[in-house]
Amino acid sequence: MAVYTDISEEELGAFLGEYPVGELLSYKGIAEGTENSNYLLHTFGGAFILTLYERRVDKADLPFFLGLMEHLARKGVTCPLPVHRRDGQTIGELAGRPAALITFLEGMWMRRPTPQHCREVGKALAGLHQAAADFPLTRKNALSPGGWMHLWEGAKGRADEVEPGLEREVEAEFAEITRYWPTDLPSGIIHADLFPDNVFFLGGKVSGIIDFYFACNDLLAYDIATCLNAWCFEKDTSYNLTKGAALLAGYQSVRPLEPSEAEALPLLARGSALRFMLTRLHDWLTIPDGALVNKRDPMEYVRRLRFHRQVAAPTEYGIDIA
Amino acid sequence: MAVYTDISEEELGAFLGEYPVGELLSYKGIAEGTENSNYLLHTFGGAFILTLYERRVDKADLPFFLGLMEHLARKGVTCPLPVHRRDGQTIGELAGRPAALITFLEGMWMRRPTPQHCREVGKALAGLHQAAADFPLTRKNALSPGGWMHLWEGAKGRADEVEPGLEREVEAEFAEITRYWPTDLPSGIIHADLFPDNVFFLGGKVSGIIDFYFACNDLLAYDIATCLNAWCFEKDTSYNLTKGAALLAGYQSVRPLEPSEAEALPLLARGSALRFMLTRLHDWLTIPDGALVNKRDPMEYVRRLRFHRQVAAPTEYGIDIA
Repeated sequence: MAVYTDISEEELGAFLGEYPVGELLSYKGIAEGTENSNYLLHTFGGAFILTLYERRVDKADLPFFLGLMEHLARKGVTCPLPVHRRDGQTIGELAGRPAALITFLEGMWMRRPTPQHCREVGKALAGLHQAAADFPLTRKNALSPGGWMHLWEGAKGRADEVEPGLEREVEAEFAEITRYWPTDLPSGIIHADLFPDNVFFLGGKVSGIIDFYFACNDLLAYDIATCLNAWCFEKDTSYNLTKGAALLAGYQSVRPLEPSEAEALPLLARGSALRFMLTRLHDWLTIPDGALVNKRDPMEYVRRLRFHRQVAAPTEYGIDIA
Repeated sequence: MAVYTDISEEELGAFLGEYPVGELLSYKGIAEGTENSNYLLHTFGGAFILTLYERRVDKADLPFFLGLMEHLARKGVTCPLPVHRRDGQTIGELAGRPAALITFLEGMWMRRPTPQHCREVGKALAGLHQAAADFPLTRKNALSPGGWMHLWEGAKGRADEVEPGLEREVEAEFAEITRYWPTDLPSGIIHADLFPDNVFFLGGKVSGIIDFYFACNDLLAYDIATCLNAWCFEKDTSYNLTKGAALLAGYQSVRPLEPSEAEALPLLARGSALRFMLTRLHDWLTIPDGALVNKRDPMEYVRRLRFHRQVAAPTEYGIDIA
């Protein structure tokens, strides 16, 4: 939960004067997202989300993120549409920070997704991959194997504080994952952070995909692997095969996987688990106790990593290989 | 900022089934209020605030708080209206906590109120006092002089950590304030926490008064004294006479003060400053650094206390004594 920057009604009113959204009626800081400050606005023109980009977001990436959302929304993906200012821009400045106004999407994120939700998110992810295929901008994934090493270098000396032996275990993972990491699979734009809190549902259907601030060019199947980690494990870190099968079937109902992609799933899922373990470990070691940002247990992702390490074949994820 | 309790869409849907508000469209935890968890809901029936009462609120007080809001709203005070469940109740239970649904009020609270805002809030406060006069329930003020002593006993041993000499200064204040505290002034229901974040404006007019969770029976002029502390000091703790005069004139345009009330203002303002200093001091000493709740500096209220101590006559607040 996060509102890092408070804004006054005068400065917000001045900012909104550039947008064709009518008069401001209310704005509330919302306790969602961990990187930026978000406000839910009501204006005469409707409901909007105002995002102030805090220091962890590189301003140079904003045209990619906002352009992607606009591209996807215009192709029918249920994601927020950036509102253009009267000067044509989608990026303004507020309280000394880059800021954007995007449409508000109704819907609820699922604290306890069912297999049916997993099927729908699989379909939505494949739809996103297809719709993004002709987006002209590109962005390198800062959190692919090369970027992980950077996080790891800063954290590994203290990894054993989380669990004795963790440093050695992760070192071995790194060696193996980077050695076998595939490079010749279908690639394109991926969401890269499609966790349940980034997908809204209404009436059992996906009504909104949000938070494109990790989107980048990478292997499409890596995005699926992240969804398996994010959606298909229970609280006790047991893999729910029914959910996994539903997610994969949903995805394949829109875009069937190539055999090489299916084959790579266990390794991609290990890599994805490692990536989220590393960011959590970094936060765990650097954020003071009780701070505004929720610290999440890196061990949840170590346990996923261990699960994926013992997977012998992609069929163990419930994938239906044609 | 605060959302202490997360809720799932299933449990919220079940809860809302008891209310005639139509289907749920979205809910977002909002980063306002410090005592309870608040969500902004959109349903087919409109926008609502859902409040989950956390442990600092006594459940036995809820009929007073919610009944008062309903009483005031029906008398035309712009405050939230509690929504009745199908069984007639306004208090339900959600996630193991008492919970209520109230109408959402558009409007913005003023981070930098002007004298005109102060005039409007004075008028609104007097209107609230008048509208509440025939509310049949009563509630004792837990934070009147008797209650302050309880907070002070727990904090005074460490008061000098905030500023050397503070313990002795506050002890002397206590002796003087309790000795001269008036008992024969007009009393009734007061808001008791009418800070800028609890008053919304639209188009220069008050569009909403919220957060009645300190409301109680006490001296009406004590509520005015709290507003002087909350609205009429600048960031450097200088008293803004123009704002004070506007607030008092606004109040008196609706309900003229009796001479004894005006006379008591300096002492009431000292008491009010002491009360808010004490709750801040308590939080300052007991809440861990970096916790979810914003810790506010008790010294801001020590400085107000010192200002009021040197006030020789109520006219120094800008009051127009008829």
